[in-house]
Amino acid sequence: MNKHDKDKQPTPTTNSEPSQKLLDTKVSRRDMLRLTGATGLGLLLGGGAMGSLLSRGGTAAKAPVAPVQADSSIPFYANHQAGILTPAQNFLYFAAFDLTTTKLSDVKKLLQEWTTAAAALTTGRLVGNTNDSPNLPPSDTGEADGLTPSRCTLTFGVGPSFFDERFGLAGQRPSSLADLPPFVGDNLDPAWCGGDLCVQACADDLQVAFHAIRNLARIARGTAVLRWTQEGFQRTGEADPKNGTPRNLLGFKDGTGNPDVTDEAEMNKIVWQGSGDGPAWMNGGTYMAVRRVRFRIEVWDRSSLSDQEATFGRHRQSGAPIGARDEFDKLDLKAADASGKPLIPADSHSALAHGDGTVKMLRRSYSYSGGLNAKTGQLDAGLLFISFQRDLVKQFVTIQQRLSRNDRLNEYMVHVGSAVFACFPGVREGGFIGDTLLG
Amino acid sequence: MNKHDKDKQPTPTTNSEPSQKLLDTKVSRRDMLRLTGATGLGLLLGGGAMGSLLSRGGTAAKAPVAPVQADSSIPFYANHQAGILTPAQNFLYFAAFDLTTTKLSDVKKLLQEWTTAAAALTTGRLVGNTNDSPNLPPSDTGEADGLTPSRCTLTFGVGPSFFDERFGLAGQRPSSLADLPPFVGDNLDPAWCGGDLCVQACADDLQVAFHAIRNLARIARGTAVLRWTQEGFQRTGEADPKNGTPRNLLGFKDGTGNPDVTDEAEMNKIVWQGSGDGPAWMNGGTYMAVRRVRFRIEVWDRSSLSDQEATFGRHRQSGAPIGARDEFDKLDLKAADASGKPLIPADSHSALAHGDGTVKMLRRSYSYSGGLNAKTGQLDAGLLFISFQRDLVKQFVTIQQRLSRNDRLNEYMVHVGSAVFACFPGVREGGFIGDTLLG
Ligand code: HEM
Ligand code: HEM
Repeated sequence: MNKHDKDKQPTPTTNSEPSQKLLDTKVSRRDMLRLTGATGLGLLLGGGAMGSLLSRGGTAAKAPVAPVQADSSIPFYANHQAGILTPAQNFLYFAAFDLTTTKLSDVKKLLQEWTTAAAALTTGRLVGNTNDSPNLPPSDTGEADGLTPSRCTLTFGVGPSFFDERFGLAGQRPSSLADLPPFVGDNLDPAWCGGDLCVQACADDLQVAFHAIRNLARIARGTAVLRWTQEGFQRTGEADPKNGTPRNLLGFKDGTGNPDVTDEAEMNKIVWQGSGDGPAWMNGGTYMAVRRVRFRIEVWDRSSLSDQEATFGRHRQSGAPIGARDEFDKLDLKAADASGKPLIPADSHSALAHGDGTVKMLRRSYSYSGGLNAKTGQLDAGLLFISFQRDLVKQFVTIQQRLSRNDRLNEYMVHVGSAVFACFPGVREGGFIGDTLLG
Repeated sequence: MNKHDKDKQPTPTTNSEPSQKLLDTKVSRRDMLRLTGATGLGLLLGGGAMGSLLSRGGTAAKAPVAPVQADSSIPFYANHQAGILTPAQNFLYFAAFDLTTTKLSDVKKLLQEWTTAAAALTTGRLVGNTNDSPNLPPSDTGEADGLTPSRCTLTFGVGPSFFDERFGLAGQRPSSLADLPPFVGDNLDPAWCGGDLCVQACADDLQVAFHAIRNLARIARGTAVLRWTQEGFQRTGEADPKNGTPRNLLGFKDGTGNPDVTDEAEMNKIVWQGSGDGPAWMNGGTYMAVRRVRFRIEVWDRSSLSDQEATFGRHRQSGAPIGARDEFDKLDLKAADASGKPLIPADSHSALAHGDGTVKMLRRSYSYSGGLNAKTGQLDAGLLFISFQRDLVKQFVTIQQRLSRNDRLNEYMVHVGSAVFACFPGVREGGFIGDTLLG
């Protein structure tokens, strides 16, 4: 099923691989168009070889989604950080760091060094010198040598603890940036919580994302240490040539109800902090909520299809709201059967998360799978839920309070990790990550 | 750099994605060839739409490597199991199981059910009924619904413990199938060792591989439980359009020195059990060694490039033997500098692993990364080393004994997991996994 232009979730807008390869081999624009027509690959090129790759739907991605370059890189320097509205890449490597310094000047230096590194990492260049002396440790660890940029994005943020007494920045803390309140059913493990800093590395290649975090961690030595990390995945573009909404590990399409990232006004309302919302250094930034949610996979796998569908309020196969046919059909919470019973249960995840439709967020989650749970011997797998919003309390907390109390889904999952971060506005060429705060 | 036809390691022989997509869209064979010529994609189609996809080098893959079908599936029923000579897919999901039954008839039933499931999983079909009653748990967990087969292979084996007193099969144990002897430096954690059964799921998509193991584990309920699992990855085809040898997380190309999987005589010598080698039920089968090897990444990252190169006996960037230029240049252990000192240190990994060149194996390893090591706070990342050989003692143990005593690499890694399995010969249509033993 093809995706609608509206209400779609941020999956890859295009199968960038074939076009990438075609461009590498210097195929002419005319060949490219012929090819597109002849094979129905549905690729369109905007603005020649260096133009952005547009969505399969054939409609141009409007601002503000950063365009993918012909070499599969996404520009690092921009008004907003990439990795937020960017259609979700196939892989995630998430890292939370703790600062080991108490000097703000060290932090500033780290963010400056990370900026240089990030500009290289997101364009597939080696970090540091390319002609290191053989008698020194190489400045790049090498495992991504020769790989394409793979739409790598690096998204940086600071957690609430960054504004404690250590750095004298308490007065700059955005009011919604605080550890999340406890929710009913939380079973948090400190090993998956918090962090002074975060880096969300996303790429269409896990090795590329791993390489980015590893090299940033290495640069941080002496200033910051890794606190927790999590790899995440979605299906690859190769496995899903129709580029549908990815399914989570409960088998349901996940992201259907997301707002339209190409709608600038909507994004300003839902995602980006505007002037007057909070401290000026966060204008054009956004707030990230991260929850590591473990699925009770074996319990889920023993529940019936109709229970599963009632849990989400959607059909599993199509992703459509219960009673509707198409994935992107409107979520009509008033639809009822002959006896007046709502088709979509009021305590279903979609109904509760949707509410009256006035509170929204942008979700950008990844599945994770991490071997067996030592206690239960069952698969430790679930979702690294990630959402972006203009205000953590008004948006994330409001919805999660509704969900934690009544969501049918609670039977099948448990929240084991939690963190929030203020993600800086974009970095301008010549500037550095966080310069609106530390510059 | 293009790969040579000889001495190459089993990476994807072809970028199956673009061709896959092209085939999906019913492009004619003529279009295809024109496309190939026009764009230099280097794709060739053998035998029309259902033919095998051949290597970029342009030479036909000789028997016995199972051909990839046009829908990106690899036939499950064959003389040998797939996933052994199969050019390595991008992702691995490895699972070791323990049997909870003591009845051989239960084991037989499980392997029969796994056979039906494996035939479906490797062709992208749903497991079980497609028209389940909504009042029953769905027979397929759904997360791979709509995804292509993604070259999924499932490779089954039995461990030494399968031949203990429980099933009365002690007399059938192949003599080389025994727990590996302790090696110098081993630091094994029982959580990553052993297993009565194993399933190696490989696919170009991690969600596809995860789905396979999850559904096999589900089918096994009551008969077998998961003992340990490990996800693994290499770079994706998209990130490496030139399809070079993948690099491990130490930044070195890994697989260069592998024997040529398209050389049938060589494979019969190195990989497949012949008649007379051991119990008849293993003729056409092979023995798998699995070692979970954690890298001391931070130590490695502080060593100089020349130390790193001396450790492997190869150049990092090119993968060539020290002193040579091309990755596939001969590993000449006699080459020396003016003073007579060998260019490739005698205690380097390549020199020791190569030895006099008479003992060989087929390596098919994957990188892993599993968050932070709880004790050290450092990245828990390394290699799930997997090799296939005709005899575990004569091949794996012989080489690993040399390595464990003297390998320079030992400074940078520690073996934390270990298992061996006898991988059955291939399954014929109408037969079932392991029927040469249990049929
Ligand atoms: C880990 C557990 C979770 C899973 C598996 C999950 C999965 C889903 C699925 C399958 C849908 C329906 C398809 C779609 O619209 O994307 C959905 C919708 C949604 N979920 Fe979740 N979700 C989880 C947790 C959360 C949390 C913690 C929040 C926020 C606090 C949340 C907020 C939403 C929202 C806002 C929608 C869209 C509702 C609408 O249609 O307006 N979800 N989720
Ligand atoms: C986890 C640690 C290991 C790493 C990172 C590693 C990596 C490498 C690398 C980079 C090469 C050179 C390129 C190539 O020929 O593929 C190599 C060669 C080789 N390794 Fe390993 N390896 C490891 C463990 C092992 C083990 C445990 C064995 C077997 C007991 C082994 C057997 C071999 C063999 C046979 C070669 C080919 C030597 C030749 O050229 O003939 N390796 N390995």
